[in-house]
Amino acid sequence: MRLVIIGGVAAGLSAASRARRLDASLDITVLEKTPHISYGACGLPYYIEGQVRSLDQLKVYTPEFFARERRIQVRTKAEVIGISHGRRELTLSGGERVPYDKLVIATGARREMPAGENLFKLDTWADAERLQAFLQQRRPRRAAIVGGGYIGMEAAEALRTQGLAVEIYQRSGDLLKRQDAWLTGLVAKHLERCRVVVHWNYGGGLPDADLVIIAAGMKPNVKLAVDAGIEVGRTGALRVTERMETNLHGVYAAGDCAEAMHLVTGRAVWMPLGTTANKMGRVAGGAAAGARERFPGIVGTSIVRVCGLGVGLTGLSEAQARKEGFVPVSAQVAGLDKNRYFRGKAVHVSLTADRRTGRLLGGAVVGEENVAGRTNVIATALYQRMPVEDFAQLDLAYAPPFATVWDPLLVAAQQLDKLLH
Amino acid sequence: MRLVIIGGVAAGLSAASRARRLDASLDITVLEKTPHISYGACGLPYYIEGQVRSLDQLKVYTPEFFARERRIQVRTKAEVIGISHGRRELTLSGGERVPYDKLVIATGARREMPAGENLFKLDTWADAERLQAFLQQRRPRRAAIVGGGYIGMEAAEALRTQGLAVEIYQRSGDLLKRQDAWLTGLVAKHLERCRVVVHWNYGGGLPDADLVIIAAGMKPNVKLAVDAGIEVGRTGALRVTERMETNLHGVYAAGDCAEAMHLVTGRAVWMPLGTTANKMGRVAGGAAAGARERFPGIVGTSIVRVCGLGVGLTGLSEAQARKEGFVPVSAQVAGLDKNRYFRGKAVHVSLTADRRTGRLLGGAVVGEENVAGRTNVIATALYQRMPVEDFAQLDLAYAPPFATVWDPLLVAAQQLDKLLH
Repeated sequence: MRLVIIGGVAAGLSAASRARRLDASLDITVLEKTPHISYGACGLPYYIEGQVRSLDQLKVYTPEFFARERRIQVRTKAEVIGISHGRRELTLSGGERVPYDKLVIATGARREMPAGENLFKLDTWADAERLQAFLQQRRPRRAAIVGGGYIGMEAAEALRTQGLAVEIYQRSGDLLKRQDAWLTGLVAKHLERCRVVVHWNYGGGLPDADLVIIAAGMKPNVKLAVDAGIEVGRTGALRVTERMETNLHGVYAAGDCAEAMHLVTGRAVWMPLGTTANKMGRVAGGAAAGARERFPGIVGTSIVRVCGLGVGLTGLSEAQARKEGFVPVSAQVAGLDKNRYFRGKAVHVSLTADRRTGRLLGGAVVGEENVAGRTNVIATALYQRMPVEDFAQLDLAYAPPFATVWDPLLVAAQQLDKLLH
Repeated sequence: MRLVIIGGVAAGLSAASRARRLDASLDITVLEKTPHISYGACGLPYYIEGQVRSLDQLKVYTPEFFARERRIQVRTKAEVIGISHGRRELTLSGGERVPYDKLVIATGARREMPAGENLFKLDTWADAERLQAFLQQRRPRRAAIVGGGYIGMEAAEALRTQGLAVEIYQRSGDLLKRQDAWLTGLVAKHLERCRVVVHWNYGGGLPDADLVIIAAGMKPNVKLAVDAGIEVGRTGALRVTERMETNLHGVYAAGDCAEAMHLVTGRAVWMPLGTTANKMGRVAGGAAAGARERFPGIVGTSIVRVCGLGVGLTGLSEAQARKEGFVPVSAQVAGLDKNRYFRGKAVHVSLTADRRTGRLLGGAVVGEENVAGRTNVIATALYQRMPVEDFAQLDLAYAPPFATVWDPLLVAAQQLDKLLH
């Protein structure tokens, strides 16, 4: 039985490793079109920033490791240009044919951009290498970033740390795709403090600067799959079952090219993130090896550091919830991460609930400390459709070095609960 | 309508404030036997340690504040020595009678100890004042701590920071009342690194040292209530309903003198902690003011810092689960808090589940960073009786400055899930 996987980063290699673990007899091949496999793409901005000294620090495993330790053949610079599912066969760019019995598609996402000597993106190993070379050789002073999503924020932080003047050009009046004025306000204020200029509702062409980073227009990379007859959902990403199977029997999709079920809305969404890619890959590999694993879905959790400020998001914002047919109510509070005598820093929490059911729908946490932990508490509650009334009673850990006796999460939930009654 | 509250720290003042908020017409009196009200008792060890410069920093509100802002009369040095529920009347130590219509008992916990010039405890404002004076005037060098619970750990940390040689005398072979060899091993190893000596299974009398801290033998302070006919549960603490009402109609109990429902076992427990005291007080005050609030219970969450190491506990350990009739299975993993290039420190996670139902029963997190956040994720899952299988799929926040792509929580859950099948 031959399992072939297209894509050698997060989802693809998770699939390969999981399949091997479950079935020692499988013949497993991973085809990666670039020279680089198994690296933490989420770390690329921190290479530009300088926290990561060398791109090699982002590498997890080598093709040799996979061959030796897991008997997985990983081929780099192997670009698949066609899938013929009738013949169970792939065609590589050099003309070579690769047969398969089971196939996992992990072709990721892509960002289209015009070519230009000072135009960059920050999605792949090659992108980071090229940007870093430009920074070192050309010593640019003024950077423009197109897009106010998380890559835009990370690029802004990295380039500010490198001493560049940074301006963000954002098509909407909103940051981090949340349609949340409270959140956008907090983040914009912090960007201002860090002397990052934001141009709102920018409709012009490419901005004028020494270097321009395109951090907008990300799309699922699905052409290869679509050409082979694989269906996409309304999001434009590949539609998959809970077992990550596409409409073609024995063909699975995982990672940034695939949709995931949003457990708050019950609808498929496209949220390309490293954690989800790894989880999907694991399930796709398991399913390809015949296991009964499933990936129930996501609750839309993400976190980004914006010039030192942590911003954690999960579930839906109020505007997003309204669009999904809920009747949302929200509460925002500002509190302290810890007691004053432990120099607790400000932490901002927003929670949104459905007025009709009292169910928590989403939340955001903004602050310098313990943002991930608080976001994850909300995410865990969302996973289980927790009512706000219960959330307000959560038994959270308290001791002075770690928290305040009434955590801002609980205070926000109390206030929200009051609005529901 | 007269509401009287016995006890002016966490639970008592939460009750008073909540009642006032719900009913502007109530006549509210708080009786506190000591001169000090409204202070963060959990901060006392950090006063000894030096992080808190003055005990006044632990004060939250003054009696004047309560009188002026909330129309709550707070009387200090007012010790109640008798409750006559038939007459709805209290007797103070001076002989004065105080009538009530509704009563909240928040008499806290107590620790009996022999008198001795170099014998101390660290539970109250007066305890901390006396210990601090001794440290400054007598410059003791060798401290002995009787008890290996969280107060023992906090006292050890505080005195080590002050440069004393510290030895802990523990009656059992276990730390933090968890009956968990893995946890005890991790904490003991860290104590050794901090040059704190632990004497296990200590059965002798009082140890010989320049100063001795009694951090064992804490009991609910219920004599006053019991004398008035209020029932205690099997834990020895006051038995209460979800509305914090005792067996006497119109008499509520809250905080360290009362039991709480453990939501994992469905049985009442006595776990005296500041967060729970505040929540209980809030509900007791609400109930006394006629609201329909309830306190569903706790999942047994706590956190303690041990010489810089964070130790978070929630739910049941394997041994505790077995005693409660579960068929527990556990998994322990060591991982990183963040990626190596963000200098992620070691984090240890243990999870326990019930083999028969697959339900998560408890967990422990040990590490230097983000211990509270991870503990709280487990606590949130426990609150909702989450199966381990679901826990392993949680959509937790990931970006390199904050976490690793497979959080140790998820890795532990995957391993535990494997053991269940």
